[in-house]
Amino acid sequence: MKIALVGGTHGNEPVGIEVMSLFKLTKKSFTNDYQSFWGNPKAFEQKRRYIDCDLNRAFGKNAIRKGYEGERAKKLEEEIKGSFDFCIDLHTTTSNMGLTAILNNTHPLTQKAARFLKLEMPEVTLIEEDKLDKECNHLNRLCPAGLTIEVGPVANNVVNAELVLKTHKIVEKLLNFDFNFEVKQTPIEVYKMLGVRKYPEKKGWYIHPSLEGADFTELKKGAPLFINIDREVIELEEEGPIYPFFINEAAYLEHQSAFLVAEKRQAFTDPS
Amino acid sequence: MKIALVGGTHGNEPVGIEVMSLFKLTKKSFTNDYQSFWGNPKAFEQKRRYIDCDLNRAFGKNAIRKGYEGERAKKLEEEIKGSFDFCIDLHTTTSNMGLTAILNNTHPLTQKAARFLKLEMPEVTLIEEDKLDKECNHLNRLCPAGLTIEVGPVANNVVNAELVLKTHKIVEKLLNFDFNFEVKQTPIEVYKMLGVRKYPEKKGWYIHPSLEGADFTELKKGAPLFINIDREVIELEEEGPIYPFFINEAAYLEHQSAFLVAEKRQAFTDPS
Repeated sequence: MKIALVGGTHGNEPVGIEVMSLFKLTKKSFTNDYQSFWGNPKAFEQKRRYIDCDLNRAFGKNAIRKGYEGERAKKLEEEIKGSFDFCIDLHTTTSNMGLTAILNNTHPLTQKAARFLKLEMPEVTLIEEDKLDKECNHLNRLCPAGLTIEVGPVANNVVNAELVLKTHKIVEKLLNFDFNFEVKQTPIEVYKMLGVRKYPEKKGWYIHPSLEGADFTELKKGAPLFINIDREVIELEEEGPIYPFFINEAAYLEHQSAFLVAEKRQAFTDPS
Repeated sequence: MKIALVGGTHGNEPVGIEVMSLFKLTKKSFTNDYQSFWGNPKAFEQKRRYIDCDLNRAFGKNAIRKGYEGERAKKLEEEIKGSFDFCIDLHTTTSNMGLTAILNNTHPLTQKAARFLKLEMPEVTLIEEDKLDKECNHLNRLCPAGLTIEVGPVANNVVNAELVLKTHKIVEKLLNFDFNFEVKQTPIEVYKMLGVRKYPEKKGWYIHPSLEGADFTELKKGAPLFINIDREVIELEEEGPIYPFFINEAAYLEHQSAFLVAEKRQAFTDPS
């Protein structure tokens, strides 16, 4: 198996770049071949998520490409597409999500690798996106299979040792994974993304302090979601349970997204 | 007393801007007159600390001025200098510093306001900078007296309700403070900044997980400071005690600053 390891797809997430450079420093060899790619060097220089458009929305039929990231997307496509079997794309979040692996396709090798990772490191939370396979416009669609590694909480432009070392461990596990290995098809806990919860349209509403940092906790009807200066509270109206994640992620504020909503499932979506 | 309230001096610290807009929404009146100023609107649009140079290093005889922030500094100088007695400049940090008020001058009204704040809200930590009065190049040198309010932890470009509401409370206290009031000259806990601790020059060293988030805790000889991928540790060599703060602040990484170092004192520096 040939693995493409991508770090720094977002310029203000230096943990992934550090992890790539640690692999360069130590020069170990692994079960699988791999090659590293630095996603967005110019955005890193400017300490921004992106310059002209989000490089992690620039692939597949729903790609949005502009300016510098448009060029980078083309270049990475030339270098990676058709030459690698599996993509690992390294990210961080300002949300309190711990260690997560995100599936955005139903390829059997993606699901096998996710199962393997959960068995080896039970502290990893598995997330399956709402838009899968051809609907997905993320970078790891450059390969038939792949996982996005998303770890937090860490502020943008901050390197956190624990997250560097743990992300390094996750990547090491995947680089050493024998993809021919038969992983048992037992039930597996996966958070299936359902949608986005936006901020109230009126100004002056914030995520309620009890929700802050509470990623993946169960929310039921009446759970406090938002608060304002008069201490008024907006509560969850639906019955639930729902599971919030990406709560107060810095990058999602521009789309007025307060958090994403998931349900808990016991299996991945069947391969299409 | 006329107070200048400045928020968004750094473009990626939206908490201060939210606090200003809450005061606009509620339109209360206070003991002191005040006017709000949005420090760096263009950097906010671009979600960056600054465009061309740090607006919070652009004042006084040690000012560094370039491009857009050079223009903004001149404009704010025209609007604020000579017209206001006291400046409150609102900031956030990615470090786990809680609520802090930073003194960077020895003006009696600065020290009086800091004492008052500590009496009213004992959870506020007082910090005195190393460079005071004419040596200081921060924005609040636009007024004879003033405080920088620095709260955290919060990631850049994130609005945290608790920090918004608490910063709002601090500002409200200061706007209602009778500056003629005689505050008792009892001993007062203040962290006096002594210097900067830089990262090791060699690549691949990170702030030790036990130091992460440990702002204002006492460090003595042997305390772990840095760690690398081989789990080697660099420890504090001096006897101590020292008190670290601004640990892993995103903006200080560009100067290789791992944290700032303070000692604990029982009094402010005497007015010069």
